[in-house]
Amino acid sequence: MSYEHLFTFEATPVKFGPGAALDAGWELQRLGVKRAMVVMDPQVARLEAAQQILSAIRAAGTEAVTFTDIRVEPTLASLETAAAAARDARPDGFVALGGGSTIDTAKVANLMVSCGGQIMDYVNPPVGGGRPPPSPLRPLLALPTTSGSGSEATTVAILDLPDLGVKSGISHRSLRPAQAIVDPQLSASAPAGVTAAAGLDVVCHAIESYLSRPYHTRPRPASPAERPPYQGSNPVADVWSAWATERGGRFLRRAVHDPDDTEARGMMMLSATMAGVGFGSAGVHIPHACAYPVAGLRHEYRAPGYAPDHAFVPHGLSVIVTAPAAFRWTYDADPARHEHAAQLLTGQPVTGREALPEALRALMRDVGAPLSLREFGYSEADLPALVGGALKQQRLLAVAPRTPTEADLEGILRAALDGA
Amino acid sequence: MSYEHLFTFEATPVKFGPGAALDAGWELQRLGVKRAMVVMDPQVARLEAAQQILSAIRAAGTEAVTFTDIRVEPTLASLETAAAAARDARPDGFVALGGGSTIDTAKVANLMVSCGGQIMDYVNPPVGGGRPPPSPLRPLLALPTTSGSGSEATTVAILDLPDLGVKSGISHRSLRPAQAIVDPQLSASAPAGVTAAAGLDVVCHAIESYLSRPYHTRPRPASPAERPPYQGSNPVADVWSAWATERGGRFLRRAVHDPDDTEARGMMMLSATMAGVGFGSAGVHIPHACAYPVAGLRHEYRAPGYAPDHAFVPHGLSVIVTAPAAFRWTYDADPARHEHAAQLLTGQPVTGREALPEALRALMRDVGAPLSLREFGYSEADLPALVGGALKQQRLLAVAPRTPTEADLEGILRAALDGA
Repeated sequence: MSYEHLFTFEATPVKFGPGAALDAGWELQRLGVKRAMVVMDPQVARLEAAQQILSAIRAAGTEAVTFTDIRVEPTLASLETAAAAARDARPDGFVALGGGSTIDTAKVANLMVSCGGQIMDYVNPPVGGGRPPPSPLRPLLALPTTSGSGSEATTVAILDLPDLGVKSGISHRSLRPAQAIVDPQLSASAPAGVTAAAGLDVVCHAIESYLSRPYHTRPRPASPAERPPYQGSNPVADVWSAWATERGGRFLRRAVHDPDDTEARGMMMLSATMAGVGFGSAGVHIPHACAYPVAGLRHEYRAPGYAPDHAFVPHGLSVIVTAPAAFRWTYDADPARHEHAAQLLTGQPVTGREALPEALRALMRDVGAPLSLREFGYSEADLPALVGGALKQQRLLAVAPRTPTEADLEGILRAALDGA
Repeated sequence: MSYEHLFTFEATPVKFGPGAALDAGWELQRLGVKRAMVVMDPQVARLEAAQQILSAIRAAGTEAVTFTDIRVEPTLASLETAAAAARDARPDGFVALGGGSTIDTAKVANLMVSCGGQIMDYVNPPVGGGRPPPSPLRPLLALPTTSGSGSEATTVAILDLPDLGVKSGISHRSLRPAQAIVDPQLSASAPAGVTAAAGLDVVCHAIESYLSRPYHTRPRPASPAERPPYQGSNPVADVWSAWATERGGRFLRRAVHDPDDTEARGMMMLSATMAGVGFGSAGVHIPHACAYPVAGLRHEYRAPGYAPDHAFVPHGLSVIVTAPAAFRWTYDADPARHEHAAQLLTGQPVTGREALPEALRALMRDVGAPLSLREFGYSEADLPALVGGALKQQRLLAVAPRTPTEADLEGILRAALDGA
């Protein structure tokens, strides 16, 4: 077998700074957008900032058609609603103003109106058809309002398929936004629980990427078209993964506990985007694979800071809850790299197998995150379904530093049941 | 006065690895290019690697029209020749295979065939008209063969105007290549002198960017359209500037002295590109401003490793020769940052005003570069012309950490006369 000999690196253009959101109209004009569908989180839409952005877009000469029927953690049904609205609105470009759910909804609405077909045609196999978009998409301008998903910098949209009891995604380079505007003022009103969940997602993106299988240990693809989007760790992705891990360790607690700490909030916003650049190249693996069934199977948990009428496990919490157990198990693949990740996160010269799990649990505790799967309503009886759901994410598991068997995943999830 | 509140970050998509160049045909197909003008350095064109790349392009189904009439350090006349060839060839895309001179020639040929007008219309003011390209350019696939200019990652093309005794450039985001393929095997045949000059350019890009004026100390532009491409140092550019400085200190000597050291060669290739990403956001200043007249006024120096019939100062040597004196003068703007740059370059805990000049002179000496302007044929009598040429580069001097007066530039250039 011959091994992969190259890696690729691609970043969404980013404009960063407090007040940068008011450049939205100028950016749409630059991108040639005359009529934009503005996909907004409904809570964000009520803020003065949203109205100022809409005014800036219209003042610059772009029509704005708003859409706010977003579901946190989008489902196939909610995405179909957005796609239908886009077909009615006939925009020549999109704006996303919200968190990862909003940006992902705009990506899928853009895909459907630009390329036609059914959403399931494009969903990653084996859940969906895995069809690549047959044409370019329209320009998408992404303005994140949480410091979490990094969706503004990635080629991925995630969706929940409640009928199948699983989450999956659509992944293709043409889904990448044409421009991101990262304005820390847009996250200023986020509740502490949202900042915590989103920030733990950032930390997981960064550490999973940093610990992902080195790209040159993957089999060489038969043709460039078969090269997967998630390529494994590489010298360029490593820079961002390490940077975001270190910033997460230094700034997440401050951003959660003091909404007026603008330095911490800005650094978490920038870390979210740059971790997105990193994992968009290297990839995420075991904690994200487990997060799909953790978020998809039980909808009992009411997360502090989120809408009280919607019981669900926020993405960041679904990811981080298995991370300590996952990295304890991957430790043997490269102990020095695991210790370095723990050192970046803590700023301390920690060593050993437990260093990274302990650093993660300390961070989770300090920002008020649940430490165990039981807190989301899971018990031993759920293990087979959780393991089965994680095993479906072969696209992710392929970049794990060790390839887990069914028994390995059961061991990780069993440990996470009790927060070990 | 209000100050700049944001910065932007944009990177050419990069594919990196030995053998990656053979993906050229696949990338052109992905970019929709059916007929490419392949702009090649004439020395590179004779290599087997160039023929393999042409074969790969044709095998993938793209017609390839070659153009090799490149001048090292392009002049207005040589660029007009390339533009005329492009108008004849009517390509729908471009490939550049060579060093910075080749990539810049392809950028300008692409600009002229895509947008029309005269080259001088687009040259930076006050030398040229400073007109922004009125339409997008055709896709350019850049394959650097030297680890130097970073042109594959930037929005700039540099040209020599011998009639005016000055060099200038064209700078606009639409000049950025659509894709870069960075294949270390393409630099394997570069002579030691070329590797040294190119690598010193990388180190200067990185350190000038790292030491450039912080973006938030620039005046806030009246509109986003007036924001300059060179914005000053910022948290994202800093990451790449520091990374490339450290890699240059560790790998340039090895790359120059052992052509078979593939790790060092690969790291210098990647550092060149990533330093390009950094200075494409932050900018270069005093050494690059001085380099324009240093390379433009006297054409007496015969550089080892370059074509023997062409007397000129290679770009990297024209830049680095004033760097020690420039950074001695800029030291007071931020002593800690200057010391940190010296520490990155040396891997040692050096301190003080002379730390960075000394580290640079040691590197120059070790790779066989001239240390003084006299070695290029300059004397005291040339100082007024050199100072005048540097002063014309206001676009660059605007991001210097201290704004030099005419007398300050004379002091820097006088010190560089004798390699101080």
